[in-house]
Amino acid sequence: MASRKSQFPQVQPGGSLILAWQAKGKHILVVGGGEVAAGRILHCLNADAIVTVVCPSAGLNAEVAFRVAEGQVKHVGRNFEPSDLDSVDMVLVAIDDPAASTAIWKLCKERRIPANIADVPPECDFFFGSVHRDGPLQIMVSTNGRGPRLAALIRRLIAKSLPDNAGNAIEAIGVLRTKLRSIAPAPAESQKRMAWMTKVSDTYSWEEMCQLTEDDMDVLLRYYPENKVPTFDEIRAAQGFPEQQRLDLFDGSFGFSVGA
Amino acid sequence: MASRKSQFPQVQPGGSLILAWQAKGKHILVVGGGEVAAGRILHCLNADAIVTVVCPSAGLNAEVAFRVAEGQVKHVGRNFEPSDLDSVDMVLVAIDDPAASTAIWKLCKERRIPANIADVPPECDFFFGSVHRDGPLQIMVSTNGRGPRLAALIRRLIAKSLPDNAGNAIEAIGVLRTKLRSIAPAPAESQKRMAWMTKVSDTYSWEEMCQLTEDDMDVLLRYYPENKVPTFDEIRAAQGFPEQQRLDLFDGSFGFSVGA
Repeated sequence: MASRKSQFPQVQPGGSLILAWQAKGKHILVVGGGEVAAGRILHCLNADAIVTVVCPSAGLNAEVAFRVAEGQVKHVGRNFEPSDLDSVDMVLVAIDDPAASTAIWKLCKERRIPANIADVPPECDFFFGSVHRDGPLQIMVSTNGRGPRLAALIRRLIAKSLPDNAGNAIEAIGVLRTKLRSIAPAPAESQKRMAWMTKVSDTYSWEEMCQLTEDDMDVLLRYYPENKVPTFDEIRAAQGFPEQQRLDLFDGSFGFSVGA
Repeated sequence: MASRKSQFPQVQPGGSLILAWQAKGKHILVVGGGEVAAGRILHCLNADAIVTVVCPSAGLNAEVAFRVAEGQVKHVGRNFEPSDLDSVDMVLVAIDDPAASTAIWKLCKERRIPANIADVPPECDFFFGSVHRDGPLQIMVSTNGRGPRLAALIRRLIAKSLPDNAGNAIEAIGVLRTKLRSIAPAPAESQKRMAWMTKVSDTYSWEEMCQLTEDDMDVLLRYYPENKVPTFDEIRAAQGFPEQQRLDLFDGSFGFSVGA
Protein backbone atom coordinates (compact mmCIF):
# COMPACT_ATOMS: atom_id res chain seq x y z
CA MET A 1 0.00 0.00 0.00
CA ALA A 2 2.85 2.35 0.87
CA SER A 3 4.46 1.73 -2.52
CA ARG A 4 1.17 2.39 -4.34
CA LYS A 5 0.91 5.68 -2.51
CA SER A 6 4.27 6.91 -3.70
CA GLN A 7 3.20 6.60 -7.35
CA PHE A 8 1.09 9.75 -7.20
CA PRO A 9 1.69 13.20 -5.74
CA GLN A 10 0.82 13.28 -2.08
CA VAL A 11 -1.87 15.70 -0.95
CA GLN A 12 -0.48 18.74 0.94
CA PRO A 13 -3.51 20.10 2.78
CA GLY A 14 -3.80 23.63 4.17
CA GLY A 15 -3.36 25.64 0.97
CA SER A 16 -5.67 27.82 -1.08
CA LEU A 17 -6.98 27.10 -4.56
CA ILE A 18 -5.02 29.65 -6.56
CA LEU A 19 -7.02 30.86 -9.54
CA ALA A 20 -6.55 33.30 -12.39
CA TRP A 21 -10.03 34.83 -12.31
CA GLN A 22 -11.24 36.12 -15.69
CA ALA A 23 -12.49 39.55 -14.72
CA LYS A 24 -12.56 41.07 -18.22
CA GLY A 25 -15.84 42.93 -18.70
CA LYS A 26 -17.14 41.74 -15.32
CA HIS A 27 -18.68 44.22 -12.86
CA ILE A 28 -16.75 44.48 -9.63
CA LEU A 29 -18.08 46.59 -6.78
CA VAL A 30 -15.52 48.08 -4.39
CA VAL A 31 -16.99 49.38 -1.14
CA GLY A 32 -14.64 51.92 0.44
CA GLY A 33 -12.09 54.33 -0.98
CA GLY A 34 -9.01 54.15 1.27
CA GLU A 35 -5.56 52.63 0.80
CA VAL A 36 -6.71 49.01 0.81
CA ALA A 37 -9.48 49.83 -1.68
CA ALA A 38 -6.89 51.56 -3.91
CA GLY A 39 -4.83 48.35 -4.07
CA ARG A 40 -7.90 46.25 -4.87
CA ILE A 41 -8.98 48.68 -7.59
CA LEU A 42 -5.59 48.47 -9.31
CA HIS A 43 -5.74 44.64 -9.28
CA CYS A 44 -9.22 44.82 -10.85
CA LEU A 45 -8.23 47.34 -13.53
CA ASN A 46 -5.14 45.27 -14.42
CA ALA A 47 -7.59 42.42 -15.07
CA ASP A 48 -9.85 44.55 -17.32
CA ALA A 49 -12.79 44.59 -14.90
CA ILE A 50 -15.50 47.27 -14.90
CA VAL A 51 -15.10 48.81 -11.46
CA THR A 52 -17.59 50.81 -9.41
CA VAL A 53 -16.45 52.40 -6.14
CA VAL A 54 -19.08 53.18 -3.51
CA CYS A 55 -17.77 55.65 -0.93
CA PRO A 56 -18.63 59.17 0.23
CA SER A 57 -16.44 61.60 -1.73
CA ALA A 58 -14.70 62.78 1.46
CA GLY A 59 -13.49 59.19 2.03
CA LEU A 60 -11.58 58.81 -1.24
CA ASN A 61 -7.80 58.78 -0.91
CA ALA A 62 -5.64 60.52 -3.50
CA GLU A 63 -5.13 57.42 -5.67
CA VAL A 64 -8.81 56.46 -5.77
CA ALA A 65 -9.83 60.09 -6.39
CA PHE A 66 -7.32 60.17 -9.26
CA ARG A 67 -8.77 57.03 -10.85
CA VAL A 68 -12.29 58.47 -10.48
CA ALA A 69 -11.20 61.76 -12.08
CA GLU A 70 -9.51 59.88 -14.94
CA GLY A 71 -12.70 57.89 -15.58
CA GLN A 72 -10.92 54.59 -14.86
CA VAL A 73 -13.63 53.68 -12.34
CA LYS A 74 -17.23 54.71 -11.78
CA HIS A 75 -17.89 56.48 -8.47
CA VAL A 76 -21.03 56.46 -6.35
CA GLY A 77 -20.54 59.15 -3.69
CA ARG A 78 -22.43 57.77 -0.69
CA ASN A 79 -22.39 54.79 1.67
CA PHE A 80 -23.30 51.30 0.47
CA GLU A 81 -26.92 50.39 -0.25
CA PRO A 82 -28.15 46.84 -0.98
CA SER A 83 -29.27 47.80 -4.50
CA ASP A 84 -25.57 48.39 -5.31
CA LEU A 85 -25.32 44.59 -5.60
CA ASP A 86 -27.69 44.40 -8.59
CA SER A 87 -25.86 42.94 -11.64
CA VAL A 88 -22.56 42.76 -9.78
CA ASP A 89 -20.19 39.81 -10.37
CA MET A 90 -17.83 40.29 -7.42
CA VAL A 91 -17.67 42.46 -4.30
CA LEU A 92 -14.61 43.79 -2.44
CA VAL A 93 -15.22 45.55 0.86
CA ALA A 94 -12.56 47.71 2.54
CA ILE A 95 -14.23 49.90 5.15
CA ASP A 96 -13.55 50.36 8.88
CA ASP A 97 -17.02 49.25 9.97
CA PRO A 98 -17.24 45.60 11.01
CA ALA A 99 -21.06 45.59 11.36
CA ALA A 100 -21.63 47.14 7.95
CA SER A 101 -19.01 44.79 6.43
CA THR A 102 -20.72 41.71 7.85
CA ALA A 103 -24.10 42.89 6.58
CA ILE A 104 -22.68 43.27 3.04
CA TRP A 105 -21.03 39.83 3.28
CA LYS A 106 -24.37 38.23 4.21
CA LEU A 107 -26.16 39.92 1.30
CA CYS A 108 -23.44 38.69 -1.07
CA LYS A 109 -23.81 35.11 0.17
CA GLU A 110 -27.62 35.23 -0.24
CA ARG A 111 -27.09 36.32 -3.83
CA ARG A 112 -24.16 33.95 -4.47
CA ILE A 113 -21.77 36.80 -5.30
CA PRO A 114 -18.09 36.03 -4.56
CA ALA A 115 -16.82 38.51 -1.99
CA ASN A 116 -13.80 39.58 0.04
CA ILE A 117 -14.16 41.57 3.26
CA ALA A 118 -10.68 43.00 3.91
CA ASP A 119 -9.08 41.88 7.19
CA VAL A 120 -11.95 39.50 8.03
CA PRO A 121 -10.74 36.06 6.86
CA PRO A 122 -13.97 34.18 7.74
CA GLU A 123 -15.84 36.63 5.49
CA CYS A 124 -13.75 36.01 2.40
CA ASP A 125 -14.39 33.65 -0.49
CA PHE A 126 -10.84 34.46 -1.58
CA PHE A 127 -7.74 36.35 -0.52
CA PHE A 128 -5.39 38.51 -2.54
CA GLY A 129 -1.63 38.04 -2.68
CA SER A 130 1.40 39.90 -3.90
CA VAL A 131 1.54 39.86 -7.72
CA HIS A 132 4.50 40.30 -10.06
CA ARG A 133 3.48 41.36 -13.55
CA ASP A 134 5.50 41.30 -16.77
CA GLY A 135 3.21 41.52 -19.79
CA PRO A 136 1.30 38.24 -20.08
CA LEU A 137 3.23 36.76 -17.14
CA GLN A 138 1.68 36.99 -13.68
CA ILE A 139 3.24 35.47 -10.59
CA MET A 140 1.27 35.54 -7.37
CA VAL A 141 2.76 34.91 -3.96
CA SER A 142 0.46 33.85 -1.13
CA THR A 143 1.54 33.06 2.41
CA ASN A 144 -2.01 31.90 3.16
CA GLY A 145 -2.48 34.69 5.67
CA ARG A 146 0.81 34.17 7.56
CA GLY A 147 2.58 37.34 6.44
CA PRO A 148 1.62 39.78 3.68
CA ARG A 149 4.92 41.60 4.18
CA LEU A 150 6.87 38.40 3.53
CA ALA A 151 4.78 37.77 0.43
CA ALA A 152 5.87 41.13 -0.98
CA LEU A 153 9.51 40.36 -0.07
CA ILE A 154 9.36 37.01 -1.85
CA ARG A 155 7.71 38.62 -4.87
CA ARG A 156 10.62 41.05 -5.14
CA LEU A 157 13.16 38.20 -4.83
CA ILE A 158 11.36 36.36 -7.64
CA ALA A 159 11.21 39.43 -9.87
CA LYS A 160 15.00 39.78 -9.54
CA SER A 161 15.69 36.11 -10.30
CA LEU A 162 13.55 35.83 -13.44
CA PRO A 163 15.22 35.63 -16.84
CA ASP A 164 15.32 38.98 -18.64
CA ASN A 165 12.44 39.42 -21.06
CA ALA A 166 10.47 36.50 -19.61
CA GLY A 167 7.30 38.38 -20.54
CA ASN A 168 8.48 38.82 -24.14
CA ALA A 169 9.31 35.14 -24.54
CA ILE A 170 5.83 34.23 -23.30
CA GLU A 171 4.23 36.74 -25.63
CA ALA A 172 6.14 35.21 -28.59
CA ILE A 173 5.01 31.70 -27.67
CA GLY A 174 1.43 32.98 -27.45
CA VAL A 175 1.61 34.48 -30.93
CA LEU A 176 3.06 31.21 -32.27
CA ARG A 177 0.22 29.25 -30.65
CA THR A 178 -2.37 31.53 -32.31
CA LYS A 179 -0.68 31.20 -35.71
CA LEU A 180 -0.59 27.42 -35.31
CA ARG A 181 -4.30 27.28 -34.53
CA SER A 182 -5.02 29.29 -37.66
CA ILE A 183 -3.02 26.99 -39.98
CA ALA A 184 -4.15 23.74 -38.26
CA PRO A 185 -7.55 24.51 -36.73
CA ALA A 186 -9.04 20.99 -36.64
CA PRO A 187 -10.16 20.01 -33.11
CA ALA A 188 -8.96 16.47 -33.93
CA GLU A 189 -5.41 17.85 -34.18
CA SER A 190 -5.49 19.29 -30.66
CA GLN A 191 -3.15 16.57 -29.28
CA LYS A 192 -0.67 17.03 -32.13
CA ARG A 193 -0.71 20.82 -31.70
CA MET A 194 -0.11 20.57 -27.96
CA ALA A 195 2.71 18.05 -28.37
CA TRP A 196 4.41 20.19 -31.02
CA MET A 197 4.15 23.36 -28.89
CA THR A 198 5.73 21.42 -26.01
CA LYS A 199 8.58 20.40 -28.32
CA VAL A 200 9.01 24.05 -29.33
CA SER A 201 9.16 25.20 -25.69
CA ASP A 202 11.72 22.50 -24.93
CA THR A 203 13.92 23.26 -27.96
CA TYR A 204 14.67 26.96 -27.58
CA SER A 205 16.44 28.93 -24.88
CA TRP A 206 14.91 32.05 -23.34
CA GLU A 207 17.19 34.23 -25.45
CA GLU A 208 16.03 32.44 -28.57
CA MET A 209 12.35 32.68 -27.67
CA CYS A 210 12.67 36.41 -27.03
CA GLN A 211 14.20 36.81 -30.52
CA LEU A 212 11.44 34.96 -32.43
CA THR A 213 10.11 37.32 -35.11
CA GLU A 214 6.93 36.74 -37.10
CA ASP A 215 9.13 35.74 -40.07
CA ASP A 216 10.90 33.19 -37.86
CA MET A 217 7.53 31.81 -36.76
CA ASP A 218 6.36 31.41 -40.34
CA VAL A 219 9.49 29.36 -41.10
CA LEU A 220 9.05 27.36 -37.91
CA LEU A 221 5.41 26.56 -38.71
CA ARG A 222 6.48 24.92 -42.00
CA TYR A 223 7.95 22.10 -39.84
CA TYR A 224 4.65 21.45 -38.04
CA PRO A 225 3.01 19.12 -40.61
CA GLU A 226 5.84 16.59 -40.24
CA ASN A 227 5.87 17.21 -36.46
CA LYS A 228 9.44 18.53 -36.38
CA VAL A 229 11.11 21.52 -34.68
CA PRO A 230 14.23 23.05 -36.29
CA THR A 231 17.02 24.66 -34.29
CA PHE A 232 16.97 28.43 -34.06
CA ASP A 233 20.03 28.49 -36.29
CA GLU A 234 18.21 26.47 -38.96
CA ILE A 235 15.27 28.92 -38.86
CA ARG A 236 17.56 31.87 -39.44
CA ALA A 237 19.63 30.01 -42.06
CA ALA A 238 16.43 29.24 -44.01
CA GLN A 239 15.89 33.01 -44.30
CA GLY A 240 19.39 33.55 -45.69
CA PHE A 241 20.92 35.15 -42.56
CA PRO A 242 24.72 34.87 -42.55
CA GLU A 243 25.93 32.72 -39.65
CA GLN A 244 27.13 35.53 -37.37
CA GLN A 245 23.78 37.35 -37.51
CA ARG A 246 21.51 34.45 -36.69
CA LEU A 247 21.12 35.19 -32.98
CA ASP A 248 21.37 38.71 -31.66
CA LEU A 249 21.65 38.74 -27.91
CA PHE A 250 20.25 42.23 -27.81
CA ASP A 251 20.20 43.84 -24.41
CA GLY A 252 17.73 46.71 -24.62
CA SER A 253 18.94 48.37 -21.45
CA PHE A 254 22.49 49.01 -22.69
CA GLY A 255 21.83 49.29 -26.38
CA PHE A 256 24.43 46.92 -27.81
CA SER A 257 24.14 43.56 -29.50
CA VAL A 258 26.48 40.61 -29.63
CA GLY A 259 26.74 38.07 -32.45
CA ALA A 260 26.30 34.54 -31.19
CA MET B 1 -1.64 66.09 -16.15
CA ALA B 2 1.21 63.81 -17.19
CA SER B 3 2.98 64.47 -13.89
CA ARG B 4 -0.18 63.69 -11.88
CA LYS B 5 -0.40 60.36 -13.69
CA SER B 6 3.07 59.29 -12.66
CA GLN B 7 2.19 59.59 -8.96
CA PHE B 8 0.22 56.36 -8.97
CA PRO B 9 0.86 52.92 -10.45
CA GLN B 10 -0.19 52.81 -14.07
CA VAL B 11 -2.86 50.28 -15.05
CA GLN B 12 -1.47 47.30 -17.02
CA PRO B 13 -4.53 45.82 -18.67
CA GLY B 14 -4.78 42.29 -20.06
CA GLY B 15 -4.10 40.31 -16.89
CA SER B 16 -6.21 38.03 -14.73
CA LEU B 17 -7.35 38.73 -11.18
CA ILE B 18 -5.21 36.23 -9.30
CA LEU B 19 -7.00 34.97 -6.21
CA ALA B 20 -6.30 32.54 -3.39
CA TRP B 21 -9.72 30.89 -3.27
CA GLN B 22 -10.70 29.58 0.15
CA ALA B 23 -11.87 26.08 -0.74
CA LYS B 24 -11.71 24.58 2.74
CA GLY B 25 -14.87 22.60 3.41
CA LYS B 26 -16.40 23.75 0.10
CA HIS B 27 -17.98 21.22 -2.26
CA ILE B 28 -16.22 21.02 -5.60
CA LEU B 29 -17.64 18.86 -8.38
CA VAL B 30 -15.15 17.46 -10.89
CA VAL B 31 -16.76 16.09 -14.07
CA GLY B 32 -14.41 13.63 -15.78
CA GLY B 33 -11.70 11.31 -14.49
CA GLY B 34 -8.77 11.60 -16.91
CA GLU B 35 -5.35 13.24 -16.63
CA VAL B 36 -6.64 16.83 -16.58
CA ALA B 37 -9.23 15.91 -13.93
CA ALA B 38 -6.47 14.27 -11.85
CA GLY B 39 -4.51 17.55 -11.80
CA ARG B 40 -7.61 19.55 -10.83
CA ILE B 41 -8.44 17.08 -8.06
CA LEU B 42 -4.98 17.42 -6.53
CA HIS B 43 -5.27 21.24 -6.55
CA CYS B 44 -8.64 20.94 -4.78
CA LEU B 45 -7.42 18.46 -2.16
CA ASN B 46 -4.36 20.63 -1.45
CA ALA B 47 -6.87 23.40 -0.67
CA ASP B 48 -8.93 21.19 1.70
CA ALA B 49 -12.00 21.04 -0.55
CA ILE B 50 -14.60 18.27 -0.41
CA VAL B 51 -14.33 16.74 -3.86
CA THR B 52 -16.86 14.65 -5.78
CA VAL B 53 -15.84 13.10 -9.09
CA VAL B 54 -18.58 12.24 -11.58
CA CYS B 55 -17.32 9.81 -14.23
CA PRO B 56 -18.13 6.27 -15.36
CA SER B 57 -15.74 3.91 -13.54
CA ALA B 58 -14.14 2.80 -16.80
CA GLY B 59 -13.09 6.41 -17.45
CA LEU B 60 -11.02 6.88 -14.28
CA ASN B 61 -7.27 7.04 -14.81
CA ALA B 62 -4.90 5.37 -12.34
CA GLU B 63 -4.39 8.48 -10.19
CA VAL B 64 -8.09 9.32 -9.89
CA ALA B 65 -8.95 5.65 -9.22
CA PHE B 66 -6.28 5.65 -6.50
CA ARG B 67 -7.75 8.76 -4.82
CA VAL B 68 -11.24 7.20 -5.00
CA ALA B 69 -9.93 3.94 -3.46
CA GLU B 70 -8.18 5.88 -0.70
CA GLY B 71 -11.37 7.76 0.12
CA GLN B 72 -9.76 11.12 -0.71
CA VAL B 73 -12.65 11.93 -3.08
CA LYS B 74 -16.23 10.77 -3.43
CA HIS B 75 -17.00 8.98 -6.70
CA VAL B 76 -20.26 8.88 -8.66
CA GLY B 77 -19.82 6.21 -11.33
CA ARG B 78 -21.92 7.54 -14.22
CA ASN B 79 -22.12 10.50 -16.59
CA PHE B 80 -23.06 13.96 -15.31
CA GLU B 81 -26.68 14.73 -14.40
CA PRO B 82 -28.00 18.24 -13.61
CA SER B 83 -28.89 17.24 -10.03
CA ASP B 84 -25.15 16.80 -9.44
CA LEU B 85 -25.00 20.60 -9.15
CA ASP B 86 -27.22 20.70 -6.05
CA SER B 87 -25.27 22.23 -3.10
CA VAL B 88 -22.09 22.52 -5.12
CA ASP B 89 -19.79 25.56 -4.67
CA MET B 90 -17.57 25.16 -7.75
CA VAL B 91 -17.51 22.99 -10.87
CA LEU B 92 -14.52 21.78 -12.89
CA VAL B 93 -15.24 19.99 -16.16
CA ALA B 94 -12.60 17.93 -17.98
CA ILE B 95 -14.33 15.68 -20.50
CA ASP B 96 -13.83 15.24 -24.26
CA ASP B 97 -17.40 16.20 -25.15
CA PRO B 98 -17.80 19.87 -26.17
CA ALA B 99 -21.62 19.72 -26.32
CA ALA B 100 -21.96 18.17 -22.88
CA SER B 101 -19.35 20.60 -21.50
CA THR B 102 -21.24 23.61 -22.83
CA ALA B 103 -24.50 22.31 -21.38
CA ILE B 104 -22.89 22.01 -17.94
CA TRP B 105 -21.37 25.50 -18.26
CA LYS B 106 -24.81 26.97 -18.99
CA LEU B 107 -26.37 25.22 -16.00
CA CYS B 108 -23.59 26.55 -13.78
CA LYS B 109 -24.14 30.10 -15.01
CA GLU B 110 -27.91 29.85 -14.38
CA ARG B 111 -27.15 28.79 -10.82
CA ARG B 112 -24.27 31.26 -10.34
CA ILE B 113 -21.75 28.49 -9.65
CA PRO B 114 -18.15 29.41 -10.58
CA ALA B 115 -16.93 26.95 -13.22
CA ASN B 116 -13.98 26.01 -15.42
CA ILE B 117 -14.45 24.01 -18.61
CA ALA B 118 -10.96 22.68 -19.45
CA ASP B 119 -9.58 23.85 -22.80
CA VAL B 120 -12.59 26.13 -23.50
CA PRO B 121 -11.43 29.62 -22.38
CA PRO B 122 -14.76 31.38 -23.09
CA GLU B 123 -16.43 28.87 -20.75
CA CYS B 124 -14.20 29.57 -17.77
CA ASP B 125 -14.76 31.91 -14.85
CA PHE B 126 -11.13 31.22 -13.95
CA PHE B 127 -8.02 29.44 -15.18
CA PHE B 128 -5.49 27.37 -13.30
CA GLY B 129 -1.75 27.98 -13.35
CA SER B 130 1.41 26.22 -12.29
CA VAL B 131 1.75 26.27 -8.50
CA HIS B 132 4.86 25.94 -6.31
CA ARG B 133 4.06 24.84 -2.77
CA ASP B 134 6.22 24.98 0.33
CA GLY B 135 4.10 24.67 3.47
CA PRO B 136 2.09 27.88 3.86
CA LEU B 137 3.83 29.43 0.83
CA GLN B 138 2.11 29.14 -2.55
CA ILE B 139 3.45 30.72 -5.71
CA MET B 140 1.31 30.59 -8.82
CA VAL B 141 2.61 31.26 -12.31
CA SER B 142 0.13 32.23 -15.01
CA THR B 143 1.00 33.04 -18.61
CA ASN B 144 -2.63 34.07 -19.18
CA GLY B 145 -3.12 31.27 -21.66
CA ARG B 146 0.06 31.90 -23.72
CA GLY B 147 1.98 28.78 -22.71
CA PRO B 148 1.25 26.34 -19.88
CA ARG B 149 4.59 24.64 -20.55
CA LEU B 150 6.45 27.91 -19.99
CA ALA B 151 4.49 28.47 -16.79
CA ALA B 152 5.78 25.16 -15.44
CA LEU B 153 9.33 26.04 -16.53
CA ILE B 154 9.15 29.39 -14.73
CA ARG B 155 7.70 27.70 -11.64
CA ARG B 156 10.73 25.39 -11.54
CA LEU B 157 13.14 28.33 -11.96
CA ILE B 158 11.43 30.11 -9.06
CA ALA B 159 11.51 27.03 -6.83
CA LYS B 160 15.29 26.81 -7.37
CA SER B 161 15.88 30.50 -6.65
CA LEU B 162 13.90 30.72 -3.38
CA PRO B 163 15.72 30.95 -0.06
CA ASP B 164 16.02 27.60 1.72
CA ASN B 165 13.29 27.08 4.27
CA ALA B 166 11.16 29.93 2.94
CA GLY B 167 8.11 27.92 4.00
CA ASN B 168 9.46 27.52 7.55
CA ALA B 169 10.17 31.23 7.91
CA ILE B 170 6.62 32.02 6.84
CA GLU B 171 5.22 29.44 9.24
CA ALA B 172 7.20 31.03 12.10
CA ILE B 173 5.91 34.51 11.26
CA GLY B 174 2.36 33.08 11.19
CA VAL B 175 2.79 31.58 14.67
CA LEU B 176 4.16 34.88 15.95
CA ARG B 177 1.18 36.75 14.49
CA THR B 178 -1.23 34.36 16.24
CA LYS B 179 0.59 34.74 19.56
CA LEU B 180 0.53 38.53 19.16
CA ARG B 181 -3.24 38.53 18.57
CA SER B 182 -3.72 36.47 21.73
CA ILE B 183 -1.70 38.85 23.95
CA ALA B 184 -3.04 42.05 22.29
CA PRO B 185 -6.46 41.16 20.93
CA ALA B 186 -8.10 44.62 20.92
CA PRO B 187 -9.42 45.56 17.46
CA ALA B 188 -8.32 49.14 18.26
CA GLU B 189 -4.71 47.89 18.30
CA SER B 190 -4.90 46.49 14.79
CA GLN B 191 -2.73 49.26 13.32
CA LYS B 192 -0.10 48.91 16.05
CA ARG B 193 -0.01 45.12 15.60
CA MET B 194 0.38 45.42 11.84
CA ALA B 195 3.12 48.04 12.14
CA TRP B 196 5.03 45.94 14.69
CA MET B 197 4.78 42.79 12.55
CA THR B 198 6.15 44.78 9.61
CA LYS B 199 9.06 45.91 11.77
CA VAL B 200 9.69 42.27 12.77
CA SER B 201 9.69 41.14 9.10
CA ASP B 202 12.10 43.93 8.23
CA THR B 203 14.48 43.27 11.14
CA TYR B 204 15.35 39.59 10.72
CA SER B 205 17.07 37.71 7.92
CA TRP B 206 15.57 34.54 6.45
CA GLU B 207 18.03 32.44 8.42
CA GLU B 208 16.96 34.15 11.62
CA MET B 209 13.25 33.78 10.91
CA CYS B 210 13.69 30.07 10.21
CA GLN B 211 15.38 29.70 13.61
CA LEU B 212 12.68 31.43 15.67
CA THR B 213 11.55 29.02 18.38
CA GLU B 214 8.45 29.46 20.53
CA ASP B 215 10.74 30.55 23.39
CA ASP B 216 12.32 33.17 21.13
CA MET B 217 8.85 34.43 20.21
CA ASP B 218 7.85 34.76 23.85
CA VAL B 219 10.92 36.92 24.46
CA LEU B 220 10.26 38.93 21.29
CA LEU B 221 6.65 39.60 22.28
CA ARG B 222 7.82 41.25 25.52
CA TYR B 223 9.07 44.12 23.31
CA TYR B 224 5.66 44.66 21.68
CA PRO B 225 4.04 46.93 24.34
CA GLU B 226 6.77 49.55 23.84
CA ASN B 227 6.63 48.95 20.06
CA LYS B 228 10.26 47.76 19.78
CA VAL B 229 11.94 44.86 18.02
CA PRO B 230 15.17 43.44 19.46
CA THR B 231 17.95 41.94 17.32
CA PHE B 232 18.02 38.16 17.06
CA ASP B 233 21.18 38.21 19.15
CA GLU B 234 19.43 40.13 21.91
CA ILE B 235 16.58 37.58 21.94
CA ARG B 236 19.01 34.71 22.40
CA ALA B 237 21.14 36.63 24.92
CA ALA B 238 18.00 37.25 27.01
CA GLN B 239 17.64 33.48 27.30
CA GLY B 240 21.22 33.05 28.50
CA PHE B 241 22.62 31.52 25.30
CA PRO B 242 26.41 31.93 25.10
CA GLU B 243 27.40 34.15 22.18
CA GLN B 244 28.57 31.42 19.79
CA GLN B 245 25.29 29.48 20.10
CA ARG B 246 22.90 32.31 19.41
CA LEU B 247 22.36 31.59 15.72
CA ASP B 248 22.69 28.08 14.34
CA LEU B 249 22.80 28.16 10.58
CA PHE B 250 21.65 24.58 10.47
CA ASP B 251 21.57 23.04 7.03
CA GLY B 252 19.32 19.99 7.26
CA SER B 253 20.54 18.48 4.03
CA PHE B 254 24.18 18.13 5.13
CA GLY B 255 23.70 17.73 8.85
CA PHE B 256 26.18 20.26 10.20
CA SER B 257 25.73 23.55 11.99
CA VAL B 258 27.83 26.67 12.06
CA GLY B 259 27.98 29.19 14.89
CA ALA B 260 27.33 32.71 13.68
